[in-house]
Parts: sequence; C-alpha cells; structure tokens
Amino acid sequence: MTRPVIALTMGDPAGVGPELCLKAAAAPSVTDVCVPVIVGSAPVLQAVAERLDLPVPDRIVPATNADRPDGPSVLDLDNIGPADFTPGEVSAACGNAAAEFIRCAVAATTAGRFDAVTTAPISKKALNEAGIAFPGHTEMLEELTGAGPAVMMLHSPRVTVSLVTTHLALRDVPAALEPGRIAHVIRVTHEGLTRILGRPPRIAVLAFNCHAGEQGLFGDEEARAIVPAIDAARADGLDVDGPLPPDTAFTPAALDRCDAHVCMYHDQGLIPFKALSFKGGVNVTLGIPIVRTSPAHGTAFDIAWQGAADPAGLIAALDLAARMAGGACRMIN
Amino acid sequence: MTRPVIALTMGDPAGVGPELCLKAAAAPSVTDVCVPVIVGSAPVLQAVAERLDLPVPDRIVPATNADRPDGPSVLDLDNIGPADFTPGEVSAACGNAAAEFIRCAVAATTAGRFDAVTTAPISKKALNEAGIAFPGHTEMLEELTGAGPAVMMLHSPRVTVSLVTTHLALRDVPAALEPGRIAHVIRVTHEGLTRILGRPPRIAVLAFNCHAGEQGLFGDEEARAIVPAIDAARADGLDVDGPLPPDTAFTPAALDRCDAHVCMYHDQGLIPFKALSFKGGVNVTLGIPIVRTSPAHGTAFDIAWQGAADPAGLIAALDLAARMAGGACRMIN
Repeated sequence: MTRPVIALTMGDPAGVGPELCLKAAAAPSVTDVCVPVIVGSAPVLQAVAERLDLPVPDRIVPATNADRPDGPSVLDLDNIGPADFTPGEVSAACGNAAAEFIRCAVAATTAGRFDAVTTAPISKKALNEAGIAFPGHTEMLEELTGAGPAVMMLHSPRVTVSLVTTHLALRDVPAALEPGRIAHVIRVTHEGLTRILGRPPRIAVLAFNCHAGEQGLFGDEEARAIVPAIDAARADGLDVDGPLPPDTAFTPAALDRCDAHVCMYHDQGLIPFKALSFKGGVNVTLGIPIVRTSPAHGTAFDIAWQGAADPAGLIAALDLAARMAGGACRMIN
Repeated sequence: MTRPVIALTMGDPAGVGPELCLKAAAAPSVTDVCVPVIVGSAPVLQAVAERLDLPVPDRIVPATNADRPDGPSVLDLDNIGPADFTPGEVSAACGNAAAEFIRCAVAATTAGRFDAVTTAPISKKALNEAGIAFPGHTEMLEELTGAGPAVMMLHSPRVTVSLVTTHLALRDVPAALEPGRIAHVIRVTHEGLTRILGRPPRIAVLAFNCHAGEQGLFGDEEARAIVPAIDAARADGLDVDGPLPPDTAFTPAALDRCDAHVCMYHDQGLIPFKALSFKGGVNVTLGIPIVRTSPAHGTAFDIAWQGAADPAGLIAALDLAARMAGGACRMIN
C-alpha cells in the first residue's frame, strides 16, 4: 500500500514545533506509516537542527511545486528566518508565519497534493499580535475549508471523546444544546471512528445532568435535545447508546462497552480524558473535508529550542492521521 | 489503644445489608480496627445467617442497654422478622425498620455509646412507601443531629472529592454557588481529611467553568463565589489551591499535588472519582457532629440474600470510620 503523504505544519517558530517536527520526521515509526512533509521555514528548521544536532529532511521543495514527495521533505515557505524572532517569545512575526503554514497546508491538501494535515502547536497570543482574528486552528480550518461546524474529538487508545460544545460558560451550555448540533456531532464521530477502527463504532452519548436528569427531575436537556438526537442517529442506522448518566460512563466496564463518548460540554469530556489518557492524546478535527490531527499539548515556550521536547504526542498525531487518511483512500478507491 | 465502637446499621432488610453486615462483622480486617455493633433485627440476621451459612455475632444486646460492647455484637431492635417481607422486594415494613435502625444508631452515637456510624444501604423507594419523607441518609442525618448542611465526600486511596452541590439540574448550579456554602465545604473537608490523614490536608478547589473561566471570559462563578471562598479558607490558615481548571485537576501529577478536591457539581467530582476508583469508594458525611461512612453502592435487591454480595465496600467504610473516630478520640483526649 502507498503511504499517505501528510502535511506537517511547523507551528509557532518560537515554540517547540520546529524541534518536534524534525524529531517526528526522522522517527521510523512515522516514516513506516506515512511520508511527512514539514510545511514551514527551511532556515528556521536549519537553525534548530544545528543548535540541537538534529537531522533535517534531505529534500526541500518549494510551495509552488505540486509533486507528492515519496520521502520526508520540507515544503519551504521561507517566510521567516531565525533572526526575526527569539525562541520562547510571543511575536507577531511568528504568528503570521504560523498562520501561513496552515493556509498552505490546507490549500495543498484540499487540492489533493497531501492526504492529511497534522499541526504542531501555535500560539493564540501570537496570532492575536499578528492581527489574525482566529482563536485557534479549529476556527481557521472551518474558514479555510468553507465547511463545518468543526467538531473537536480527543482520541487515545483507552478513551475517545467528542465535544458538542467547547469554550463556553457552563451556564450557557443548556441553550447551546440543540438536537441538530448533537446529531451532527454523533454523525461525524461515527465517520471519524469508522476511519480509525475500520468498522462502525459503538457510540455512548452522555446526558447533560447528573443521573441523566432522573426522568426529568433535574433538568430537561435530555428530553428536549439529547434523546431526539439519539433517535435521529439510530434512524440512520448508527450504534448509539444513551443518554447515559455521566458519572458511571467512564468506569473500566463502561469504557469496554463503547468506542467513543459524545460529551455535552468541555469538562464532561476532558476531565475523564485527561485523567485516563494523560499522555498520547491526539486532537482530531471532525466535520471538515480533510483529515486533521494534532498533539494535545501547546507551544511550551518555556522549553522551546532546548532539545527537551517529547515528540510522542506529535508522533501519535501523525500515526492517527495516517490511519485516517489510509482509511479514507480505502473507502474512496 | 482501645478500638472504636462502631454502630453498623443493617440497612434495608430485603437488600444486601444483612448479609454484608454479617460478613463484615466477622472479617478480621474489621475486628482488628474496631468493634462493630450491628444495629438491626436479630431474627432477620439469624434467618440470613442460616440460609447462607454465615456466623452471627455471639452477643445480642437490647437497644435500652447503654454498654459499650468489646466485641462484635448485635443491637437488636426486633422491629421486623423474616416473615414480614420478601428478600429482593421493596416494602413499607422494610423502609420503616431501616429508618429505625438509623434513628437508634444516631441517637446512641450522639449520646456517646458509639464512636461512629457506618450504614448499610437503604432503599429510597421503601422509605417513601413507609411514608418517610427523607430521600436518603444524608437528609435524615441532618434532621437527627440538628446540624448541617451535611456535605457528601467520596474517599478512596487515590482520589477524594467533596461536593458543593449534589442532585440538582446543572443549569441551576450557578445560582447555588455561594461563597459561604463553598467555604463551608472547604472547611469540613479540611476537618474530615485531617481526621483521616492525621495531618492538615492540601485541598484543591475546582473552578466551575472550563479553563477556570479564562479570566472572566467564560462565566463569573470563579470571581463571584469561588475565589472569595478560597480567600476566606486561606485566611483561616487552610492549605488551599484554586480555582483550578477542572480538566487538568485529575491527571496523575495533579492527584499527587493534593489530598482532596472540592467540586462544584455532582459530575465534576463523580466522573473522575468513578473513573479512577471504581471499587473501594467510601461515602463520608461531613458537616454533622458524628462520624458517618457508608459504601458507595446501593441495596442491590437483585442479588439480595444469595450469598454473592461483596463486603469490600462496607469493610472499607468501617475501616475509614474507625480511622476517623480514632482520630477524633486522639484530638479530644
């Protein structure tokens, strides 16, 4: 089977992104399953490589080229150099460059040059200083692909959670729980997990209230929004259980009964995810027409350019992207 | 050291309570650390013992007696017999009898005859059929001791959580988050953990919103209610951290940094508690003038009187009660 070609955006140049990209692109566990193409700035990668004694991929290709490399490469945007910023510091120059890496990677993937995008971390603050209005990758991806709403899924071998709502005051969540939105999250979770597992997944949909509201005694979100969404998903033939009482949904026995949990709010999903999968968690963006993954960690400015950054998260993200892109190819061909 | 004498209420006669009490009272790990006195009905215990071939404590004492037994005993209320109900079935007779066990145990403990109360499970439905208005132990304990508000804490060797609110629609939680209530929960958690650990605990107080509200961007519950409660607790010399972003509060590293988490709502505490401590969890009622513990499970009518019930939860509850009562004695003497 041909290995999928994955655009690996370099992330904020002043963060751990460049170092992690070099480490991941050289890892046999990565090159065994995909062809990583670092979408970034070659001069910056060169500077990091020299400082930390890391290898840079042999092949440097320009952005204007349309080939599909068959080995680790750098797609050089040459839009920032090591003299333009200080490692570990937020800057507009880095925010601008990081946004360009993403734009280029998404456009080339949409055009079919790459099979998936894996992103190294960016800084919300740096984007902001650069005058870029997006708070993060997800919103940029919706805009760049013209699709959505995008759905955030966190995947690990033990637990997978998809979020119906994300960064919102918890008191505003009830109003945001609409049957259509919940059904959308169930559907894209089903599609994403089908690519990952190679079979239809068993999905657990959580209640919003404790004890699933005890038959309407505490709150009406289950009857009003969640049950109709589950009914719609079942009518489409999906394997869906719920609304489940949230407190018993992540016990070992409950984890064995499903492949993913659809969660109504940020902490309902992220508390158990981080408690049970503190390392190796991969963030997957669902609901957009390309495969996109990223490690769950951030720019880690405090350890940038020092050689101490652990590429395990980025390697897991590349591995998952390869699996999802491969699955996509298998489904299309 | 004298072992504390613990009133062990028999729970609903038709549930697993009688069997569990007999098993626990005969367990060396229990009798090594305390003197268990089953507060129940001797004829019912005798019937369970005969059916399952379990030992009954030698000593049967009447409720009117005021002695402190020095070995496993039965305090016989003789208020229900095996002919009055069917094992595994909800009944008013059982609800009435179970409530009397609790009243007797609390009164005797308040009077100083016993050092703590550990309760076997009761049925909310049976209480209801008996015309008893309390939904569970906690509310009965507040009424019987004239104290409160009682606070629910779940304890295990790995995680301990105290709840600021319990069975409430999640949309109604913001209005229930008052600085005084939160400060009360922090204080009684500090007192309870001090008894358990024999030293002042490190307490983590969780935010209500994801990312702790990101400086007021999502919700005002942190600034309005939680920070003032933390400030008040610190002014009293308590070791309190927070408000913490909830999603990273239960990672292995975060668990190592504290002894207990004060949680703002039911699932914020119970999702991670049950994910990480699915067995051996003990429920502790704080904020009342007596020590009270119970296993985290229910009456399990489906396996009642069959010999299959696992006493591990009740044994852990007795062990914790013994530790807390011992601590209390040490502090008083």
